[in-house]
Amino acid sequence: MDPRELTVQMSQAKLSAVQVVSAFCKRAAYSHQICDLLLEIGFDLALRQARECDDYYKKHGELIGELHGLPFTMKDQFHIEGMPTSAGYIGWIGTFEGKTDSEKYMKSESLLVEQLKSLGAIPIGKTTLATGTWSAITNNNILGYAVNPHNRQLSTGGSSGGSKTKLDIYDTVLGLTSNKIEGEVAMQALRGSCFGFGTDVGGSVSIPAAYQGVYSLKPSTGRISFQGGVKIVAMPAVVGIMGPSLDVLQSVFKSTLSTRPWTRDQDVTRMPWQGLYDGQLPKRADLAFGFLENDGIVTPHPPVARAMRIVKKAMEMAGIELVGWHPPSNSEVANIHGSLARSDGCLDVWQALELSGEPLTPELELTFPKRRAAPPMSVVDYQSFVVRMVAFREKWNEYWESSFERTNNAYATSLNVLDYPSIGIPITVVDQHTDETDPKFKPLTSKDAEVMQTYDPGEFHGSPISIQLIGRRQDEERLFAMAKIVQDAVDNLENAGVDFLHC
Amino acid sequence: MDPRELTVQMSQAKLSAVQVVSAFCKRAAYSHQICDLLLEIGFDLALRQARECDDYYKKHGELIGELHGLPFTMKDQFHIEGMPTSAGYIGWIGTFEGKTDSEKYMKSESLLVEQLKSLGAIPIGKTTLATGTWSAITNNNILGYAVNPHNRQLSTGGSSGGSKTKLDIYDTVLGLTSNKIEGEVAMQALRGSCFGFGTDVGGSVSIPAAYQGVYSLKPSTGRISFQGGVKIVAMPAVVGIMGPSLDVLQSVFKSTLSTRPWTRDQDVTRMPWQGLYDGQLPKRADLAFGFLENDGIVTPHPPVARAMRIVKKAMEMAGIELVGWHPPSNSEVANIHGSLARSDGCLDVWQALELSGEPLTPELELTFPKRRAAPPMSVVDYQSFVVRMVAFREKWNEYWESSFERTNNAYATSLNVLDYPSIGIPITVVDQHTDETDPKFKPLTSKDAEVMQTYDPGEFHGSPISIQLIGRRQDEERLFAMAKIVQDAVDNLENAGVDFLHC
Repeated sequence: MDPRELTVQMSQAKLSAVQVVSAFCKRAAYSHQICDLLLEIGFDLALRQARECDDYYKKHGELIGELHGLPFTMKDQFHIEGMPTSAGYIGWIGTFEGKTDSEKYMKSESLLVEQLKSLGAIPIGKTTLATGTWSAITNNNILGYAVNPHNRQLSTGGSSGGSKTKLDIYDTVLGLTSNKIEGEVAMQALRGSCFGFGTDVGGSVSIPAAYQGVYSLKPSTGRISFQGGVKIVAMPAVVGIMGPSLDVLQSVFKSTLSTRPWTRDQDVTRMPWQGLYDGQLPKRADLAFGFLENDGIVTPHPPVARAMRIVKKAMEMAGIELVGWHPPSNSEVANIHGSLARSDGCLDVWQALELSGEPLTPELELTFPKRRAAPPMSVVDYQSFVVRMVAFREKWNEYWESSFERTNNAYATSLNVLDYPSIGIPITVVDQHTDETDPKFKPLTSKDAEVMQTYDPGEFHGSPISIQLIGRRQDEERLFAMAKIVQDAVDNLENAGVDFLHC
Repeated sequence: MDPRELTVQMSQAKLSAVQVVSAFCKRAAYSHQICDLLLEIGFDLALRQARECDDYYKKHGELIGELHGLPFTMKDQFHIEGMPTSAGYIGWIGTFEGKTDSEKYMKSESLLVEQLKSLGAIPIGKTTLATGTWSAITNNNILGYAVNPHNRQLSTGGSSGGSKTKLDIYDTVLGLTSNKIEGEVAMQALRGSCFGFGTDVGGSVSIPAAYQGVYSLKPSTGRISFQGGVKIVAMPAVVGIMGPSLDVLQSVFKSTLSTRPWTRDQDVTRMPWQGLYDGQLPKRADLAFGFLENDGIVTPHPPVARAMRIVKKAMEMAGIELVGWHPPSNSEVANIHGSLARSDGCLDVWQALELSGEPLTPELELTFPKRRAAPPMSVVDYQSFVVRMVAFREKWNEYWESSFERTNNAYATSLNVLDYPSIGIPITVVDQHTDETDPKFKPLTSKDAEVMQTYDPGEFHGSPISIQLIGRRQDEERLFAMAKIVQDAVDNLENAGVDFLHC
């Protein structure tokens, strides 16, 4: 049942919070058994909170808040009172962020969790991640590899192996089929909770969500609080929301803003939900969406190209203009992003590993080839990359401003460098017969040839394919309205009987 | 005439833009002759633009925009088409930021200037600064020391000399009489233009404005664009506005937001003026202002204490509650601020100096005691100061949240570390007979003793004294409303015949 429907039923006493939470805890337990997803399990705490919700409802005849009784999960980078936080480090087990005898152990709570609880939402567990979040592959020495919920043979970095696990490919593009998993994304794909939270430094929300059939929001910096969370890298992480529909994402985003997080966390911008599009979307005839066929470096894999054709057709049917989108090249993004994100030599990750002396996972061996933290960059060098990042942002802004008859993409890390918000919308699934590699495929670049070789229709058969919609910095409210328009167009195309396999 | 009145007269064809600009150019020229303020003079360009304003008005029967025909000045850290930019460096003369043969020389224009011009405002010149803005004392090898417009004997770092020029005193406190000058502030004190812009990394707008009788806004980061400006240090500079009244500051701030700067400059937050208090201020009975007597480290000088008593009395008369304000100690601010601001070893300043080989000013000798840039900090060390800065911000936020019956200050650099907006409001002037040092003065700290010794009633006689009102991050709109309430209260106290000398 959609979370909105659950809320309606709880508000009419047709369902209790205990019933809802019990059902999702079971589902989360199955999900964990299938895919190894939960680093921390908090079912007992969740049921206690559910009883409190029910008591409140009985006493006051109304729900606690907009998210009353809705169970959620989150990447193990947030603290929840009553649960430990390991972030995948052996040395953090039984400690507060590696500190033994800390008063904060199992007492600390991240601001976002406080906010969600004040709205009535109930955390039921925390999901697995790459050790210290420092890898594109979800693996740690506590749980091992997380498994792809759509195809356990595609377990990340495990059986599929080979070139697909190469970081440079994961880092580069969203225009690809991918077996990148994040524990929280897999949990959402299996509907183990009503909604979930991850963090995105370089596509860790947007990329896996795109290939697990999960709706996702990666906002700009300054919109969702990460105060009191486990922050890892020099590049700012943004908290992203994942769930089964646009409505859920919007409702969670909007309700966290209603708690006025900026009064507690200065990294959150003082920017309430304004209700600009509540109740009415803009007129379709007034709109134009930019449409990026490819970024000139890497060609989308065949099922991704088909998803794009579906959207194109849907938008045409809806009478909405699509215009070619030719933004500044992404070629320098990887260098800017990697340099800033690794500017501290990953010292904090290394120190956390040293606490226990745990062995390096294969993924961390790539990060620490010399078996120690790299020397940190100097502030002067760091500034030079910031200057390049700002210049890249300015080029994009100029392009966007210069094209008012046009209007959206970049692949994944560029959205972090740009700090643009994005929403991922699932469109179709891979079909091994339809989505064959084009025999006339001509690679745009040598990297393109390499990336296309990683596509195997049989291996990816049945995997979800999404498109990504991007907006301008801090313009999440408009982005939600635009996403709804795209979703409606795609739904209408489907309702009109168009066969998505033959788009 | 107040700029608002000038606008009314221009809109009724009673004054032309050429008349207004001519009058202010004369005044700016006198100001320059008295105090050595203009690094760049653009009267000819300004008169040409004024004629264009008048032509527009004749043709369309309406003003170009909200700032039609109003002349302004700005610190020489902004580029204006048709004027060079030296930022006080000998080596930048005749170049674009030290680059010879650059196409941008005299062609580049900072976004803020573009915005202001689009609103009809007219730049007439650029004001002097410390070489590369890297000093609390305004001195450079092009113009020499700027002179205090209220008392030429108090020329900064010049004749008054001695302990007052010590950086550690200027850096510490706003609760003091001070002879810190900034060229743009002096220009506003002499009404050489209708309004002006400076930059504030550690009080360079708020401190001098407070002691020159000039109204000032130091906003939070992300409100006024500094794109295409000369950025110097690692710590983010904010652009501040100065002028002869709160109305002018608010009108300029609001109108620059109306140009939607965030579409061009990602460092500006997508946050329009919301009109929350336009037309009606909050009810006075609902309000409480926090009132900081001292910060526990340094006692305000006698005339500052008197200005605070005036405000206290004014607020009492207005029936507005004042409550004691006891925020977290400022003791660690100087270390956090100085470390971050100097984290790059001031390499860019040093490189600009090396272009010409100009001698170090006495102030820069303090910055470069070894006659070279200091080694930059590592990103890991830099992060440790950022962590301390964030913790300091969180402590303040907690204090503010915990005191809803209370509510406002810190001295100057803490507002940069906190990123809180502040407005300076002139209250009175030093009177050498009234404002004598309290013979029973007991220093709070050894620093307090040292700082009180720098106060000399005779020397500062006639100097303006301001109070500073602070608000929460990005809450400038509410801060303007509160400032108006304080200003009204003080005006009413004066109109009631209360003698400010005996408060």
